[in-house]
Amino acid sequence: MGEPAARATELCDAALAGDRRALARLLTAVENRTAVAEAALRRLYPLAGRAHLVGITGPPGAGKSTLVAALIAEVRQAGRSVAVIAVDPSSPITGGALLGDRVRMQSYAGDQDVFIRSMAARGHAGGLASTSGAAAAVLDAAGFDLIFLETVGTGQSEVEVAAAADTTVVLEAPEMGDEVQAIKAGLLEVADLVVVNKGDRPGAQRTAAQLRAMLVASVPRNDAHHHPRPKRPEVLVTTASTGEGVPELLAALDRHRAAGRGGPAEAARLARAEHQVWAIVSDRLRDRLHGPGRRAVTEATLHEVAEHRLDPYTAADRLLGSLGWRD
Amino acid sequence: MGEPAARATELCDAALAGDRRALARLLTAVENRTAVAEAALRRLYPLAGRAHLVGITGPPGAGKSTLVAALIAEVRQAGRSVAVIAVDPSSPITGGALLGDRVRMQSYAGDQDVFIRSMAARGHAGGLASTSGAAAAVLDAAGFDLIFLETVGTGQSEVEVAAAADTTVVLEAPEMGDEVQAIKAGLLEVADLVVVNKGDRPGAQRTAAQLRAMLVASVPRNDAHHHPRPKRPEVLVTTASTGEGVPELLAALDRHRAAGRGGPAEAARLARAEHQVWAIVSDRLRDRLHGPGRRAVTEATLHEVAEHRLDPYTAADRLLGSLGWRD
Repeated sequence: MGEPAARATELCDAALAGDRRALARLLTAVENRTAVAEAALRRLYPLAGRAHLVGITGPPGAGKSTLVAALIAEVRQAGRSVAVIAVDPSSPITGGALLGDRVRMQSYAGDQDVFIRSMAARGHAGGLASTSGAAAAVLDAAGFDLIFLETVGTGQSEVEVAAAADTTVVLEAPEMGDEVQAIKAGLLEVADLVVVNKGDRPGAQRTAAQLRAMLVASVPRNDAHHHPRPKRPEVLVTTASTGEGVPELLAALDRHRAAGRGGPAEAARLARAEHQVWAIVSDRLRDRLHGPGRRAVTEATLHEVAEHRLDPYTAADRLLGSLGWRD
Repeated sequence: MGEPAARATELCDAALAGDRRALARLLTAVENRTAVAEAALRRLYPLAGRAHLVGITGPPGAGKSTLVAALIAEVRQAGRSVAVIAVDPSSPITGGALLGDRVRMQSYAGDQDVFIRSMAARGHAGGLASTSGAAAAVLDAAGFDLIFLETVGTGQSEVEVAAAADTTVVLEAPEMGDEVQAIKAGLLEVADLVVVNKGDRPGAQRTAAQLRAMLVASVPRNDAHHHPRPKRPEVLVTTASTGEGVPELLAALDRHRAAGRGGPAEAARLARAEHQVWAIVSDRLRDRLHGPGRRAVTEATLHEVAEHRLDPYTAADRLLGSLGWRD
């Protein structure tokens, strides 16, 4: 057994026994796509599949973090355990802690059944969906009842991340600018539940009514990549800062999960699996193309394309050819 | 010569002769990744490489569309031609026209030297960067002097799109919420030029001063995936609604381009080429895995992963093995 496999076994054993520091280290390995992560996931993946994975997304300023905090309190009151993966929009490259994240962690510092983790939205395209899927599998295997995947819902990949959850909650706030309104419309398409937060503001009930009207008007879509959507998403109003409406939201999440077996949740699981497998296939391919013996050809080919001396299709065929790979 | 190749030749000939409707059709083909697009790009790609590709990104509400409109007016006054690719955040799935886009198009309806195009942020991960890169190559071959790539700068892929331009402009507005502030900090890392828009608002000059201080404090990064950044980005203040500061911005763009040869612009071109080639490699791989003879194995494997009966690494190796492909 190699070094990474031994390290993975050690961390997995500890994490499964409830060691949160070992769990955090596993998640770091997953985020960095190390050999330890591969060995750990090979072991943990078959143990996962029990948790309820809830995606929570919405435009900046809708109050996602506050709502997640209120949901944590509600879940804990019901005696259930919860993990949060907060995909950090603050830095596409270096990452960094989500605003308020440290504060949130501290208030549950002594609670073994709450685990909060920021993940940077970095890495190559598609990486986010696969990394968060893998992180969810680790937390699932570690026994958390609920896993919240919190993302800011404006970018393609962030929306995909949320949409690959068993249940997707789209958060909206009353009174936002035009661009944010447009983002809203797009987000509704991935929603299993729509929540108008900041319900104490004037206009919240009107926003909820408008959203219900939009949802009635929209034709349900069936899309192989996303949820087939058998019924119209429910629209709820919450005031996360006071906790108003949060018990009802948790009840709606539970109902959606109970109703969802075999339906949209299954499609979401398939999408999640596909993201993860595809990311690994892509990594393997990249490793080979940039590995010893092929790196020089790969780099020269990419330079020719950058200088417009070669078109990208001929380049792609040349790279696949360099792998000795023909159909 | 097959049907798509003949159609591509026809559209390319017309587009190169100045037919804007043919150009629009080529871009639709590029967006849908059709066989016509492949044939057209094989022909047009070697003709491209002359235009100045400028990425313009920033958080929602910073005034990107208004600034782009002001830049178009400025570019036209200088007698140069300009195309805009606006990556539409409104719908991750079905797409839709960017707010205000129709209005913008109409005001230049009679002008052959302005071309504005919305692209939906849809498709599988990484698709956005390669599609916008391919669209830029088509517009470049068609002879536009400047190409603006406008994206909302919150999602990973949207930021990557902008960062793969020759020059990346990050737009900021004074006085924004906490989450938006966090997004700002991340965006600065990809900036060649930082623009504080809405310069007529109180706090604009203070925001510019703060940004200059942040940029002085930050250590320049060299990252293979992004621009090596030899010098600190300039911070400008504009009021796009009145045109104030816009001539200075265009001059700064020209200076960045003149200075950038062989430096960051070359790295950006390489990143753009890599995105495009990689997307084609991925498409070819997907087509084969989901093609006749392999589809059943691929789908069964993905289902096993979704049901946690198989880990994603073993699944990836099985799929690569089904291609008869060994290292």
